[in-house]
Amino acid sequence: MFLDEVFKRKEELLGKEIKVHGWIRNHRPQKEFGFIDFSDGTCFKHLQIVYDKTLENFESVVALHNGSSIEVTGILQKSEGSGQDIELKASNVFLLGDCPSDYPLQPKRHSNEFLRSIAYLRPRANLFQAVFRIRSLAALAIHEYFGKNGFIYFHAPIITASDCEGAGEMFQVTTQQIEKIKGEVDYKKDFFGKKTSLTVSGQLQAETFATAFSKTYTFGPTFRAENSNTKVHASEFWMIEPEMAFVDLEGNMDIMESMLKYVVKYCLDNAPDEFEFLDKFVEKGLIEKLKKLVNSKFTRITHEEVITILKKADVKWEFTPEYGEDIAKEHEKYITEYFDGPVFITNWPKDIKAFYMKQNEDGKTVAAVDLEVPGAGELMGGSQREEDYNKLLNRMKELQMDTEEMDWYLNIRKYGTCVHSGFGMGFERLLIYLTGVDNIRDVIPYPRTPGNCDF
Amino acid sequence: MFLDEVFKRKEELLGKEIKVHGWIRNHRPQKEFGFIDFSDGTCFKHLQIVYDKTLENFESVVALHNGSSIEVTGILQKSEGSGQDIELKASNVFLLGDCPSDYPLQPKRHSNEFLRSIAYLRPRANLFQAVFRIRSLAALAIHEYFGKNGFIYFHAPIITASDCEGAGEMFQVTTQQIEKIKGEVDYKKDFFGKKTSLTVSGQLQAETFATAFSKTYTFGPTFRAENSNTKVHASEFWMIEPEMAFVDLEGNMDIMESMLKYVVKYCLDNAPDEFEFLDKFVEKGLIEKLKKLVNSKFTRITHEEVITILKKADVKWEFTPEYGEDIAKEHEKYITEYFDGPVFITNWPKDIKAFYMKQNEDGKTVAAVDLEVPGAGELMGGSQREEDYNKLLNRMKELQMDTEEMDWYLNIRKYGTCVHSGFGMGFERLLIYLTGVDNIRDVIPYPRTPGNCDF
Repeated sequence: MFLDEVFKRKEELLGKEIKVHGWIRNHRPQKEFGFIDFSDGTCFKHLQIVYDKTLENFESVVALHNGSSIEVTGILQKSEGSGQDIELKASNVFLLGDCPSDYPLQPKRHSNEFLRSIAYLRPRANLFQAVFRIRSLAALAIHEYFGKNGFIYFHAPIITASDCEGAGEMFQVTTQQIEKIKGEVDYKKDFFGKKTSLTVSGQLQAETFATAFSKTYTFGPTFRAENSNTKVHASEFWMIEPEMAFVDLEGNMDIMESMLKYVVKYCLDNAPDEFEFLDKFVEKGLIEKLKKLVNSKFTRITHEEVITILKKADVKWEFTPEYGEDIAKEHEKYITEYFDGPVFITNWPKDIKAFYMKQNEDGKTVAAVDLEVPGAGELMGGSQREEDYNKLLNRMKELQMDTEEMDWYLNIRKYGTCVHSGFGMGFERLLIYLTGVDNIRDVIPYPRTPGNCDF
Repeated sequence: MFLDEVFKRKEELLGKEIKVHGWIRNHRPQKEFGFIDFSDGTCFKHLQIVYDKTLENFESVVALHNGSSIEVTGILQKSEGSGQDIELKASNVFLLGDCPSDYPLQPKRHSNEFLRSIAYLRPRANLFQAVFRIRSLAALAIHEYFGKNGFIYFHAPIITASDCEGAGEMFQVTTQQIEKIKGEVDYKKDFFGKKTSLTVSGQLQAETFATAFSKTYTFGPTFRAENSNTKVHASEFWMIEPEMAFVDLEGNMDIMESMLKYVVKYCLDNAPDEFEFLDKFVEKGLIEKLKKLVNSKFTRITHEEVITILKKADVKWEFTPEYGEDIAKEHEKYITEYFDGPVFITNWPKDIKAFYMKQNEDGKTVAAVDLEVPGAGELMGGSQREEDYNKLLNRMKELQMDTEEMDWYLNIRKYGTCVHSGFGMGFERLLIYLTGVDNIRDVIPYPRTPGNCDF
């Protein structure tokens, strides 16, 4: 029986014999008896195993190592110890797989840096038991939210022939034997007959699905070959990109807000033990922070109004806030504190935003929105998309983009165009916010960063 | 209001005024009145719009083109026409986005080949409305099944430094300017400091998660640079790879069977209109086939027993069935017909299976399982994994694999090893079976195959 079931059915199972399989997280043998801190990873809670000399193989059980896998049969009983309400009184403890004493994951405090070097073992540690279960729950919550609301889950292509977003460095994908290339590359000989790369975003393709299903979203891996070694950048990360037809910027914000609240609430409801642990050992006040978000009303304010507030503020800025320019981290922080909650900032200067965003009538701004969240900074970004064929074409030409290669994207505006909007959320950014863990390398099972592609 | 809501709440909305946005799928204007076959893609059903000369802009409404997007206000009423029970009597029809007459998706029968060339428009066609909604539902069902059963959803890395499975041709991932390479390649200068490729499977990493959470699964894209142009091969496809600790081959089959039935039933229950369409136009008897699967008991039989049955069969085989060898398509077909249902074939000759499969005591076979499904062939494959460090090491050496690079995978057997099992299911294979569509290019939004990487 798995432990999640044992804990769920504990009332009913009290006094009954059960058999469990799992690992020794910590073993405290005494002369006459012993305690095993036991887990199979199906829930955050561990089960305490108690045994004594009545065990036939008492001597060999006493000698069991941390990290070993065992099978235990026994009676589930109330525990008199502190820290747990039930325990398993073992009648049989059987070693399944030994674990030598060079086991790197001994029950003591390890640095996150060290744990990254044993990324294949770290999911057994409490911190990662919490983080990766919340990662799983958050993913489920996202699918559940969109499923309930009639969105079609759309798998955007990973290998792509276009650098549509112009989002910077991309990874090239090839089957050519690059050792044998001399000078010019004949891409006709490559697998797809052209130069291909890993996608940086599924948005443009998602727009084509929005004009067929009205409501769609992607949830898949995206890639940036950016050579930046920071706590928040990974080369491979998962993105959620919803796209909705007949929805304007206001409607877009409604969905951003309700989705985020849904996901946070779902995780809080379904992982109380994990959040208690994180609140205690990773970020004090985490649960309160998340509950506050769920119950808050997000402010909606234009970029221009933000600059006015920043200029009036009695603060010595490192970067002077200016109309028509981007805002800095210090400004984001000030604004969320000013409104004491999440803030949607809308209508950004068009020159600092992407080509596909809807041009406002003022000729200076676009219908973009960034969501700034206290303690997280920018958590999502989106926009109403330019639905006018000629305006979009002209903007692309201004930016010297290849309009021919992207005729399909433009054509969406030619064949029954419509108001539509969407946004993107980096899944790992959300997880950093949700778990309090401050390094993106610790919320991804096997992180890929410059110089690192292990396991 | 979106159409999924209109149809859900139709009783309550009858006689009331509603406003909808969507596209003209087919327009049949008459002299005094007209009908618009209208859809916004949020459900398979279309809404019939009726209008007459009482419209202020009757003349311009009559002139509306197929494919245009419109906003319609009107009273929802019972329909006297055949084919629908409700219709919208328009009081206002407003053109949002025109669609010129060169619109490639006119309401007539198009070949699937042609529709592939306009893959960005084909989701608007009935066939792809059905296929991609079922794709979305099947994905949700998979997440729901594993979520309910306590599995941790695990994102396996996409970029990898190892060709672990030895599964053949891989796509190389690089940031080197391959035009400038002369002779030897210095991979230290590449983004990750080593040679990297796109993953062919997340299984090996999933095993590390199984030894931490007991129950885990991946659902993500995988890649094969195989130069084969068939109806069932794509270069980029999504795989589901569950992995369970303390579960043997029998338990593995239990989960394979219950998952497949869950997903098929979920789709049938949630997309009745889509399946009715597919049953009528794509595969006669589709619904019956799927219902039969849900209600069947899957047969479990060894490879050896299969060969014995095949040898006894009064059939002139193209390929003679032999103990110790693989079976051919004709054999798969015969066996599922013989048992009149899905068949698990277990204990395969070890030389035709992967290195990580558990070696049986006979020294000849491994604890592998393939699921053969009537009309689909092999739908899933799995195995109990070799949990013995030395047996695995020796097998890898026999196959001349790089055991040093894979020490982390081997170490799983060193630190608290356990019986564990898992399987893989190609998501698109499932969709081919579910929808009756026979070409993998038509169940993937933007398929990637040799020579094809469009959109």
